[in-house]
Amino acid sequence: MEPKGIPLISGFSKLTRKERIEILNKLINQNEDLLPWLDSWMHPDAGQQATFQKFSENYITSFHIPFGVVPNMVINGRHYMVPMVIEESSVIAAAARSAKFWSCRGGFRAEILGTERKGQIHLTWSGHPQRLRDRFEGLTQDMLAATALTTRKMKERGGGITGIRLVDKTAAIPGYYQVDVSFETADAMGANFINTCLEEMAAVLERELSHYQEEGKVEIIMSILSNYTPGSLIRCSVECDIQELSGISGKLSPEEFARKFELASRIAGVDVSRAVTHNKGIYNGVDAVVLATGNDWRAVEACGHAFASAGGSYSSLSEAKISGNRFSYTLNLPIALGTVGGLTKSHPQAALALSILGNPGAGELMMIAAAAGLANNFSAVTALITSGIQQGHMKMHLPNILKQLNATPQEEQSIRAHFEGKQVSHAAVELFVNNLRNQHG
Amino acid sequence: MEPKGIPLISGFSKLTRKERIEILNKLINQNEDLLPWLDSWMHPDAGQQATFQKFSENYITSFHIPFGVVPNMVINGRHYMVPMVIEESSVIAAAARSAKFWSCRGGFRAEILGTERKGQIHLTWSGHPQRLRDRFEGLTQDMLAATALTTRKMKERGGGITGIRLVDKTAAIPGYYQVDVSFETADAMGANFINTCLEEMAAVLERELSHYQEEGKVEIIMSILSNYTPGSLIRCSVECDIQELSGISGKLSPEEFARKFELASRIAGVDVSRAVTHNKGIYNGVDAVVLATGNDWRAVEACGHAFASAGGSYSSLSEAKISGNRFSYTLNLPIALGTVGGLTKSHPQAALALSILGNPGAGELMMIAAAAGLANNFSAVTALITSGIQQGHMKMHLPNILKQLNATPQEEQSIRAHFEGKQVSHAAVELFVNNLRNQHG
Repeated sequence: MEPKGIPLISGFSKLTRKERIEILNKLINQNEDLLPWLDSWMHPDAGQQATFQKFSENYITSFHIPFGVVPNMVINGRHYMVPMVIEESSVIAAAARSAKFWSCRGGFRAEILGTERKGQIHLTWSGHPQRLRDRFEGLTQDMLAATALTTRKMKERGGGITGIRLVDKTAAIPGYYQVDVSFETADAMGANFINTCLEEMAAVLERELSHYQEEGKVEIIMSILSNYTPGSLIRCSVECDIQELSGISGKLSPEEFARKFELASRIAGVDVSRAVTHNKGIYNGVDAVVLATGNDWRAVEACGHAFASAGGSYSSLSEAKISGNRFSYTLNLPIALGTVGGLTKSHPQAALALSILGNPGAGELMMIAAAAGLANNFSAVTALITSGIQQGHMKMHLPNILKQLNATPQEEQSIRAHFEGKQVSHAAVELFVNNLRNQHG
Repeated sequence: MEPKGIPLISGFSKLTRKERIEILNKLINQNEDLLPWLDSWMHPDAGQQATFQKFSENYITSFHIPFGVVPNMVINGRHYMVPMVIEESSVIAAAARSAKFWSCRGGFRAEILGTERKGQIHLTWSGHPQRLRDRFEGLTQDMLAATALTTRKMKERGGGITGIRLVDKTAAIPGYYQVDVSFETADAMGANFINTCLEEMAAVLERELSHYQEEGKVEIIMSILSNYTPGSLIRCSVECDIQELSGISGKLSPEEFARKFELASRIAGVDVSRAVTHNKGIYNGVDAVVLATGNDWRAVEACGHAFASAGGSYSSLSEAKISGNRFSYTLNLPIALGTVGGLTKSHPQAALALSILGNPGAGELMMIAAAAGLANNFSAVTALITSGIQQGHMKMHLPNILKQLNATPQEEQSIRAHFEGKQVSHAAVELFVNNLRNQHG
């Protein structure tokens, strides 16, 4: 049965960009040719542009996302300007507010608790588990030997394979085992390196174990890095005397603010509905740095949210504490980033982002991303427990609402006077304007 | 103590773009002015460009990400061209491979299991829980009345507030309750709508309960939508006779392929290290559609990964089944997207993406995103259990490696002949080239 809509297309990836756009023209049935419009989003320099067409397949044009910077981020005593690429309004503003606030209260303190990367060979073995365990030490030597060429350069940079262990998973699935491998990959994300090592090791495992067919049958199911890297972990925190929290809210005293913030943090610790949104606010900041520096936000998100559920129920990644006269706010963020390889240098704007950050190593970049996450999270919780999230949002939207309603300068003046300190919503502004116009109409 | 690096900056957000770039020039200490280079990434039309500078704060330039399309996606009997914005190579190629494979096997079947959005008022109440429960019905009427103006237009579009309930969370935190509110938001993501409703309701709650100070004290901690929307759920699946899986792998028979695929899926169901990477592969496809259509990937990721942990341990979102002669693969994806509001129409390229999809409603877009996720996931698992992930990856990287090694056309020919069917790695190719050159040198 032929599907509805346009016919199926054969060999689309082999078409030229122009030919692909021809198909889109027919599909959306506009009178105007899309080609010049799509061209207009591309870089005018052919050399720069060619790079982008190689990044991904079936390229049509380049999608634009705002690239901004957050000033005044003080991390471990050093002032950074942090590049962020993000489509959502107020993310950069929120990070900048936090950055400035903490810049004169000791800044963000970050430490690298680990940089371990992981990968697994997933296999089945039909024989007795002890037979596999007996041979594993010998196999480990053979597997390491097989990766010698691949790991040589990584070892020169201080990385390599740091651990191999056999994990018996037969309680979950009969006959299922893992070879769990730990890596250090220096400043690289290391995905290609890890996957190449694992496939080389898996080939050895399969070949060597097939010599013992009378003991059992081996099957390699798959060999692949894991994006779950709880051993690649940043701790980032801010801390000050409670009195130093004065001025952050017009309504609350520093003591009230600290108490309410700590309670909001505890709520995100026990309630999944709140925890998800709380952590989403952390990733607003983290992902904006990840994207700006040419790293992979899907890997970072998957790892972090799985980590948030490691205790058995999904919980928040950050925690506020009041201890005597001190207020502190701490984020534990598992994150694996690279500053060499991948797009980090080949995307010219990612290269600029790294240069704005002073060309950090991977660990330093991970600390910067964590600080950006904590900055956004601190601002969001602060807004929620003081003025509410909508006041700032709708204040920003007010010019758009005025424009949509074609408000005159005089009407704008009346609107601003009426809504001063009041809840702004599209509906309320519209009603007010209509009343105004009916009075005068 | 002044931080190291450049001095802190006051009033950065009030500077002009040129002034901000002046500061970056000093920071990265290049001889060349960054301004013309940063300009070159912006849209040449001043009107289009102005839109981007309003999306986010401290704007410097626009970041480019490849925008491509996946042809031959058949979903519920209709052929879509699916726009994807993604920086990672092979995501679009993998989706296209799956799309084509399933297009002649019934395509993707998707259904909307729900479109419920959520929000909560988080509060404390110091009195007896029964006093709060007694008053809650009356309060519900008052809260609904307070949102009448805000909900009027949403009701006309078929949405609005669909449920309000009081949740006693005192077992987790003494005195802590939630007013848990359900919404339908039609084709909008609805964040502003939900937050405005919640803040209006919270104001009523606070005012009314403060009349009963002798019974207890109320405090509103925060009122905010939740990105956790398990009730906004898409089920998407592919299904065929096992014999129809022939040709997908040169090595495995259709029966072997189905068995191995089902086992790989079960492994992702029981092992967190694999589940995270498995789901990351789903979000490669999902996020690429989310970003292309101007939606918020952080919200989508946070919701989905929390949902993946709802059973008590983090698990995969998709599941393969063999039932008699049938093979099926099903994804349950919680996702809340919009096709009106936010950037969906104001980002001109997001508007084009929606137009390429035939201007779908929110539910239809959610099904398309789920199908893209399942398509990517199916391709990734297929690659892993057949040829391995590196063979395709490194084959794609080979031209880059050849270029880095300045390989002559003659050397390239020898390299391609030598590595035909063999594992390609940077180190192995380099070694081979060096040996070649030493032989002839």
